[in-house]
Amino acid sequence: MIKKVLIANRGEIALRIVRACNELGIKTLCVYSEADEQSLHVQLADEAICIGPPPSHLSYLKADRIIAAAEIANVDAIHPGYGFLAENADFAEQCENCKIKFIGPSSDAIVNFGDKARAREMAVKAKVPVIPGSEGIVDNEKDALAVAKKIGFPVIIKAVAGGGGKGMRVAHNAVAFTKEYSSARNEAEKAFGNGAVYIEKFLEAPRHIEIQILGDQHGNVIHLGERDCSVQRRHQKVIEEAPSPFISAETRKKMGRDAVKLAKSVNYEGAGTIEFLMDEKQNYYFIEMNTRIQVEHGVTEEITGVDLVKEQLLIASGQKLSYEQKDIKITRHAIECRVCAEDPSRNFAPCPGEITLYYSPGGHGVRIDSHVYSGYTIPPHYDSMIAKVMTFGKTRELALDRMDRALGEYLIRGIKTNIPFSRAIIRDPYFREGKATTKFIEEFINRVPKDIYT
Amino acid sequence: MIKKVLIANRGEIALRIVRACNELGIKTLCVYSEADEQSLHVQLADEAICIGPPPSHLSYLKADRIIAAAEIANVDAIHPGYGFLAENADFAEQCENCKIKFIGPSSDAIVNFGDKARAREMAVKAKVPVIPGSEGIVDNEKDALAVAKKIGFPVIIKAVAGGGGKGMRVAHNAVAFTKEYSSARNEAEKAFGNGAVYIEKFLEAPRHIEIQILGDQHGNVIHLGERDCSVQRRHQKVIEEAPSPFISAETRKKMGRDAVKLAKSVNYEGAGTIEFLMDEKQNYYFIEMNTRIQVEHGVTEEITGVDLVKEQLLIASGQKLSYEQKDIKITRHAIECRVCAEDPSRNFAPCPGEITLYYSPGGHGVRIDSHVYSGYTIPPHYDSMIAKVMTFGKTRELALDRMDRALGEYLIRGIKTNIPFSRAIIRDPYFREGKATTKFIEEFINRVPKDIYT
Repeated sequence: MIKKVLIANRGEIALRIVRACNELGIKTLCVYSEADEQSLHVQLADEAICIGPPPSHLSYLKADRIIAAAEIANVDAIHPGYGFLAENADFAEQCENCKIKFIGPSSDAIVNFGDKARAREMAVKAKVPVIPGSEGIVDNEKDALAVAKKIGFPVIIKAVAGGGGKGMRVAHNAVAFTKEYSSARNEAEKAFGNGAVYIEKFLEAPRHIEIQILGDQHGNVIHLGERDCSVQRRHQKVIEEAPSPFISAETRKKMGRDAVKLAKSVNYEGAGTIEFLMDEKQNYYFIEMNTRIQVEHGVTEEITGVDLVKEQLLIASGQKLSYEQKDIKITRHAIECRVCAEDPSRNFAPCPGEITLYYSPGGHGVRIDSHVYSGYTIPPHYDSMIAKVMTFGKTRELALDRMDRALGEYLIRGIKTNIPFSRAIIRDPYFREGKATTKFIEEFINRVPKDIYT
Repeated sequence: MIKKVLIANRGEIALRIVRACNELGIKTLCVYSEADEQSLHVQLADEAICIGPPPSHLSYLKADRIIAAAEIANVDAIHPGYGFLAENADFAEQCENCKIKFIGPSSDAIVNFGDKARAREMAVKAKVPVIPGSEGIVDNEKDALAVAKKIGFPVIIKAVAGGGGKGMRVAHNAVAFTKEYSSARNEAEKAFGNGAVYIEKFLEAPRHIEIQILGDQHGNVIHLGERDCSVQRRHQKVIEEAPSPFISAETRKKMGRDAVKLAKSVNYEGAGTIEFLMDEKQNYYFIEMNTRIQVEHGVTEEITGVDLVKEQLLIASGQKLSYEQKDIKITRHAIECRVCAEDPSRNFAPCPGEITLYYSPGGHGVRIDSHVYSGYTIPPHYDSMIAKVMTFGKTRELALDRMDRALGEYLIRGIKTNIPFSRAIIRDPYFREGKATTKFIEEFINRVPKDIYT
């Protein structure tokens, strides 16, 4: 069993990992940047080491410093959380070389799934449906246009190294295609140092449905049902829920089986998420696999009772999965709103600064994951997400009513947040009917007067 | 359906009721004392009316002012919470007379169960086991002593109007009895304006096991399993859990049936708790019925998924119970620690004052019910309980591990709390084995060095 873990992350997920370690009796070492000295994960860990100043490339992305900290503090394992180095195969490999357990899959799996074109090939090989598109990278405009024409417009151009919406462009016709193709490449080159792109059929208003899986070192893989993350703003998830209000039990079963198949085909170890887009007929297409814990993992925990981060730690310790597929029972509905320090009235611009008063909702059916408190100053260097509110109950309606009241009692003063925006969505009849696709927020913003959510 | 509720209480339970009302779309009116203007229940209710200064007899116990507020604000119903007027039959009757629904049983039921001697008679009549004792009140020393001798020492002398440990005295022999009998009477006279007492066999180290029930206006009664509240300090519950680690499935079933029988025998309406003492052989004896929601109701909610306060509101609206007995399934273990502003190093003396920093634990399997926040000043006039932490999980061990980590991450600065004391109990091997009786805390305090919990 792992005895001591270095947590190579910050914010709510660092605290989330501290919590899981504390419950398992595993010692924790947090690394932090100078901007995060105030942060709770630093205060609540058993040990903490400062690894440099902000921004991230001087600290949370400094693999060598993190490994040095791990060696100095004599940890057995590193938990990368999400973002930062979580899907950096080089980092995972360095850990492997230093005999420090990287909590996640092998560096090979990260390389393969990190490259979206290669991930697609693996899905095809495992007979998991994929969106019609180019066979891998298309590195010149002429071939790219030919592929686009063959697939039929609209198409989407995607950076192989992409993430968070960067290096993604939609083209509705050949003229637009030429422009967007080079934009996507330039943006990807700038953001990821890799301009390679591939092309896919663009679904106009799909749903984003993803399957959570867990695999151990002994070849066992299970899935924990789906999450519906269709409510996105600029490819960033805003509200997530489980189960999906849209899919049938049959589709759920099929998707779960496909996800397990894909993970098994690569001997996948750890927690992972297989993301699909789904059309209105419940046809689904593999888009990518995230080889890490995800922000929205909590809704799956709330509907299944499985503590995913603990399972990650147990799997990394070499233990067999605590659950078989038949043990996974979904008896509740859960929903999550990401609370971001941003101003909906100024196009969701980030609002770092001091939180002068903080009261987080509580009571039956409410879970809060957050590292902030009254007097905490949100540094300007990182993601604007400061908390996750999850609510759950026997039915979707109950979970939604609970979310409405929880958001209503959230008090955060000193900064602006997207809470009124999320609450307006939770109250929206169209959303409540379970009709939201990835187009929802765009349509919602056009339809609803701004003063409802600002 | 009730449309607007007056909440005749304060603190966490007032907020708890606001939450249930919000989820059901019921409007709320909070009444508050001048000392509670800062309190969250006042800020989060739809309306709030100040009903006088502290202490309680000038505000929260002022039935006439509360009813006046209810009439001015045109509410349909009054939720009394626990304590204050929750078991005041006169108040319930006044509500009945004013055609305002008192959320709880009829004033008759309150009268009958509020009188402990009468409650005992009702239990006997319903064939629910009671502790050997006097047949009702014993109002002179000579008869009392005769009864005590007949039952056999030790005996306990109890005020019929008692509660919270007041007007309760144990006597181990005839000499002590004479002294304790008059002490109990005097204390009861002072505390409740009623010196009447009765006598029972005193169980040396019983467990306190109570059954939660719900009854509707249509004669349906169900039980929701037991809570083990054996961990008490001076007859005040400190830690509660469900299910009990001690009782067998068979005993659980029998106790549940007995509780339902007793409630049915009086056409009980609303939420209620039937309290039993239990000896080491799982023999159990009725001690009293609480005709209200209890502090520790949350652990039952967490193991059953039933929102008890919502059920109270639905029942008061005339609806049938949302659940039949067969729907009540216990699939988890839950534990609660009461967080009190008190100093364990000074004999648990109350510590009102300003909370300069407040961070409440979160994450998977943790529920917080609290009305306080950073900058909140705890007034000196009321009970010292400022929060309830509940943790839950598939097993008792998991719930305990989670409680340990939750208490470990609770940050409350500016005042002293009993958190270190509760955490020391949660970590105590004897407690973890499920061996605690009502003698536990006394024994724990004698056994454990004080610096572990101060």
